[in-house]
Amino acid sequence: MKAPIDFYFDFSSPYGYLAAEKIDALAAKHGRSVQWRPMLLGAAFKLTGAAPLPSIPIKGEYAKRDFLRSARFHGVPMKIPSVFPVSGLAACRAFYSLNENNRVPLAKALLRAYFVDDVNIGEPENVVKIAAGLGHKPDLSDSSLKEKTKSEVDAAIAKGVFGSPYFVADGEPFWGIDRFDQLERWLAKPF
Amino acid sequence: MKAPIDFYFDFSSPYGYLAAEKIDALAAKHGRSVQWRPMLLGAAFKLTGAAPLPSIPIKGEYAKRDFLRSARFHGVPMKIPSVFPVSGLAACRAFYSLNENNRVPLAKALLRAYFVDDVNIGEPENVVKIAAGLGHKPDLSDSSLKEKTKSEVDAAIAKGVFGSPYFVADGEPFWGIDRFDQLERWLAKPF
Repeated sequence: MKAPIDFYFDFSSPYGYLAAEKIDALAAKHGRSVQWRPMLLGAAFKLTGAAPLPSIPIKGEYAKRDFLRSARFHGVPMKIPSVFPVSGLAACRAFYSLNENNRVPLAKALLRAYFVDDVNIGEPENVVKIAAGLGHKPDLSDSSLKEKTKSEVDAAIAKGVFGSPYFVADGEPFWGIDRFDQLERWLAKPF
Repeated sequence: MKAPIDFYFDFSSPYGYLAAEKIDALAAKHGRSVQWRPMLLGAAFKLTGAAPLPSIPIKGEYAKRDFLRSARFHGVPMKIPSVFPVSGLAACRAFYSLNENNRVPLAKALLRAYFVDDVNIGEPENVVKIAAGLGHKPDLSDSSLKEKTKSEVDAAIAKGVFGSPYFVADGEPFWGIDRFDQLERWLAKPF
């Protein structure tokens, strides 16, 4: 078995959501598994000086159009949430509170709640409700969970992750849903 | 004949160079012509707060790797120039000094000089030399040429162009060489 693909994303990232809907199938096609690693873009933005796309003059307007067109291009249902962006902190904590087998289904449920059903997953109570629907009862205020989440986010930043989605395959980094084609070719054969 | 595709780019943009090597063939495949419109990213960056990629912490290191990998992905020869980025002002002026038939060959020669042969096209004398090689003698200090160039760049900014490459097809904007696939599908059928 080849090494897993590291898949970093922020729960509030539209392109991260699109990637989340597609990465497992891509990896499976190339005999790979995926290590899902949610992180917090805000922490990376402090280092790169970046800002959430919708807040940027001119580029923000383009971005909203591009989010929806990219979703149609990739055949993934998406709406722009009423409250956008939001903090992915509660979602990250809920994710890291579970054992590895249960994490990805929760991540997908959270992303779909936010980007399809317009549920504000920045609110911890909504995250807890979605987790409960899958049979989990995360205690988001638990201090060891907070510490674990922080160390996962710090580890992503230390690896140089500055955007969402961000993939690493055999040491090669790919930033953006728009590098999916390069990632796919790389998995077939590094170029 | 369908409307031309507007193709905006900065002469110092690696992704703009990759697009320049590919846009004419893509357009022709879909029965379109291309209106080449070089502009100056610096003017757009003042509005969006963006900065040249190589100057950004963490993201800059990734960008250099991505430039070269993207060039290999698209099958276009490219080296990262020793002096990078440079001002595209002299190149823009030389471009707009010519009549429409002669502009695109000069643009391609300038881009290849910079991204393949490592000629610093930020230096007006190098731009003049490359133009001379194609039989042109632009006077880059001509005041009406300066004015024309400025009005072309201002018009691009007024259209909302904030990056390079940036395409507009029938009113639909596409930013980035990584939207080439969406542009191609759009030309076949808007989605």
